[in-house]
Amino acid sequence: MEAPAFRCALIVGAGQGLGAALARRFSASGLGVALASRNPEALGNVCSETGARAFRCDATRAAEVARLFDEVEAAVCEPDVVVYNASGRVRGALADLDPDDVARSLAVTAYGGFLVAQHAARRMLRHHHGAMLFTGASASVKGYPQSAPFAMGKFALRGLAQSMARELSPQGIHVAHFIIDGSIARPGRIPPSDQSDSMLDPDAIAEAYVNVLRQPRSAWSAEVELRPWVERF
Amino acid sequence: MEAPAFRCALIVGAGQGLGAALARRFSASGLGVALASRNPEALGNVCSETGARAFRCDATRAAEVARLFDEVEAAVCEPDVVVYNASGRVRGALADLDPDDVARSLAVTAYGGFLVAQHAARRMLRHHHGAMLFTGASASVKGYPQSAPFAMGKFALRGLAQSMARELSPQGIHVAHFIIDGSIARPGRIPPSDQSDSMLDPDAIAEAYVNVLRQPRSAWSAEVELRPWVERF
Amino acid sequence: MEAPAFRCALIVGAGQGLGAALARRFSASGLGVALASRNPEALGNVCSETGARAFRCDATRAAEVARLFDEVEAAVCEPDVVVYNASGRVRGALADLDPDDVARSLAVTAYGGFLVAQHAARRMLRHHHGAMLFTGASASVKGYPQSAPFAMGKFALRGLAQSMARELSPQGIHVAHFIIDGSIARPGRIPPSDQSDSMLDPDAIAEAYVNVLRQPRSAWSAEVELRPWVERF
Amino acid sequence: MEAPAFRCALIVGAGQGLGAALARRFSASGLGVALASRNPEALGNVCSETGARAFRCDATRAAEVARLFDEVEAAVCEPDVVVYNASGRVRGALADLDPDDVARSLAVTAYGGFLVAQHAARRMLRHHHGAMLFTGASASVKGYPQSAPFAMGKFALRGLAQSMARELSPQGIHVAHFIIDGSIARPGRIPPSDQSDSMLDPDAIAEAYVNVLRQPRSAWSAEVELRPWVERF
Repeated sequence: MEAPAFRCALIVGAGQGLGAALARRFSASGLGVALASRNPEALGNVCSETGARAFRCDATRAAEVARLFDEVEAAVCEPDVVVYNASGRVRGALADLDPDDVARSLAVTAYGGFLVAQHAARRMLRHHHGAMLFTGASASVKGYPQSAPFAMGKFALRGLAQSMARELSPQGIHVAHFIIDGSIARPGRIPPSDQSDSMLDPDAIAEAYVNVLRQPRSAWSAEVELRPWVERF
Repeated sequence: MEAPAFRCALIVGAGQGLGAALARRFSASGLGVALASRNPEALGNVCSETGARAFRCDATRAAEVARLFDEVEAAVCEPDVVVYNASGRVRGALADLDPDDVARSLAVTAYGGFLVAQHAARRMLRHHHGAMLFTGASASVKGYPQSAPFAMGKFALRGLAQSMARELSPQGIHVAHFIIDGSIARPGRIPPSDQSDSMLDPDAIAEAYVNVLRQPRSAWSAEVELRPWVERF
Repeated sequence: MEAPAFRCALIVGAGQGLGAALARRFSASGLGVALASRNPEALGNVCSETGARAFRCDATRAAEVARLFDEVEAAVCEPDVVVYNASGRVRGALADLDPDDVARSLAVTAYGGFLVAQHAARRMLRHHHGAMLFTGASASVKGYPQSAPFAMGKFALRGLAQSMARELSPQGIHVAHFIIDGSIARPGRIPPSDQSDSMLDPDAIAEAYVNVLRQPRSAWSAEVELRPWVERF
Repeated sequence: MEAPAFRCALIVGAGQGLGAALARRFSASGLGVALASRNPEALGNVCSETGARAFRCDATRAAEVARLFDEVEAAVCEPDVVVYNASGRVRGALADLDPDDVARSLAVTAYGGFLVAQHAARRMLRHHHGAMLFTGASASVKGYPQSAPFAMGKFALRGLAQSMARELSPQGIHVAHFIIDGSIARPGRIPPSDQSDSMLDPDAIAEAYVNVLRQPRSAWSAEVELRPWVERF
């Protein structure tokens, strides 16, 4: 009943926040790490710090996602851990939203997750081994006003993860969806010093992702929610 | 604390099943009825039976949805009841799905709902009056295996409805999401006679929609689930 | 696929608010009505207005519940509609609660529901006909701070209703749980006049209960949530 | 943003399964361990293996719970980790259940959890430090037929945990509820060898409990679900 050993992680939608924290944490535990972003240039510091490789990819385009997996396999390794961390948020009153922005938000938040998951699944199914982790939000389970597009996208991503968990778990692939229920602390967004942990520390989130990877298949979590101690829920 | 009186219903995604039943039920209670479909020709029998008018519309195209509302207003009336009943289902193992089919499924099931809801909201907000009803499914709350695209679309539609309910209810607009948790009976799909009600009767669903319209705003339902007595849930 | 005709309703936990509204509404639709309360004397006005009969019963005592059903059958009729509307709320910080109060709250809110449901089920199963309706609250699905006992009781009642719905629906008995998500308006608690419907009107709730009774078994609701248009949720 | 260091765990409802696994795991990580059971004699092997101390307690009796905490503090240490793991399951058709059995099931599964939690909270609030962990089941979120009492109890326990999490988290006390969604493997219940991990391994569950204890308060989980890879959900 041992937990599986992983070798190689691909993080799609990697920036300076959670993506960078995951890169550091995965790298520290010995995994090869590949990062995908529409702006890989911005990941130079993360790459030099962790040894990760950054790749350019618009996850909403099927051809780019296909190429990404080929490039990662050629340059890093075949990922047996895939994290979908990309999202597009559009705020505003429903009546005022730009339909193209909504379509884009839905594509980045949910459809890109499908494209990435499909390529990951094809590879993982060959080995009956692998893990796919999806980053959700408060909006994954509660549709907030003035934020319909984000609710649509995050709900859809959760539906994808649930369907995948039911389909792929019995084939040995761990699918887990994380509900990050609060704001993630970032440089420049430091809250007042007496409550330095009133926002989610990306390193703490990354630790939770790693703990899920360590679960033996006898006791898998399909959904994990995380929030700061002071958060209302 | 009276329930509002409605005048005119637009049903988007109208076929021979629930759409036709809603047309009959709304018409019987005195509402003007407009139906929208990609194949309005197939609605001839419903229109002659109920006096409804059918319009051609691909709900995934912003321009067609805009034109639809203009045409309905010119030919029938300004809808103060709008039902989004369209959906696109794609089945199959995640690894085998065609990405274009998935994109199309998500667009029909969820994005079209946004486009229709936006046009409806703009009109209803002018009068602080109106109701928007969304047809969900078992897949709205549970992602089934081999059915990821439908889960994505139906989850997303529920997220849209939740966000809208929180945003628009305080402005006097009733937003309700229906979880149709079972198979809807249709001609040719009649189950064995001793269990003639083991599938959802579309007329019974339509009655539930009408009951929600009759709710005074002091006691609104934002979500209603319906299933046959013999259904596992 | 007709909805069943009911003859006789028993409302357990009847006071001046929702219980009285249900008595009026059921009586108006031709049902015989029996009310059960620990203080039946207080129901004189409801009884004279509706023709209902009031019975003394502490629903947390098995013997009293057994006697109640016997008395109702002898004096009114065998109830094919049973509503469990009793609850006991205790507020306070967890550390400060009196354990006896908590036990009492749990007994009134949940265990009494079981006792009543069991007697009702025995009768309804003989005829494969009947409906049991449970009154829940916001606390049925969300545990609020400073209110642990009420959350325990209302969660438990929902668990009971869910188990019963799965067990008894296929036997022709409709079990429905109502989440009353907001404050119920009562004499003396009238909100400011410009928002006369910012609290739940008990008559509107009663109407929703009646609508559920009218559902044909092809499309039953097992759970209904109701809240005022201005309510946050 | 460090995770807190714990010193002493009290496990209420300790048997040979999960309770023993928790005792081993907590002990291995350096915590003092106290076990409470109605039959502490049966815990001799666990105590000798782990150095834990076993105490006699019927968790449904307020006086015994008060004495338990006193005895544990005197003989072991003041617990800053408290696990409520007791439950009472009664199966059977609703109409056939013995009301006393149902009352007992509700008391063991839920009311005892309140009594234990209250004593734990009083101590933990003094230090703004501590963790309370509740063991739930599939029945915590889904009421199964023929199993109403267990659904009532487990739903109620979840309501308690939710209320406590909202009340006590901002005071520095971590409250987490675990949904164990499947059968826990035990001696004598070993499944066929080719699926040796088709039931939940108690050691794997214990590891998940420890991981929650390690979470820094910037990213706490209030609910964790665990199920075997082959489990339907």
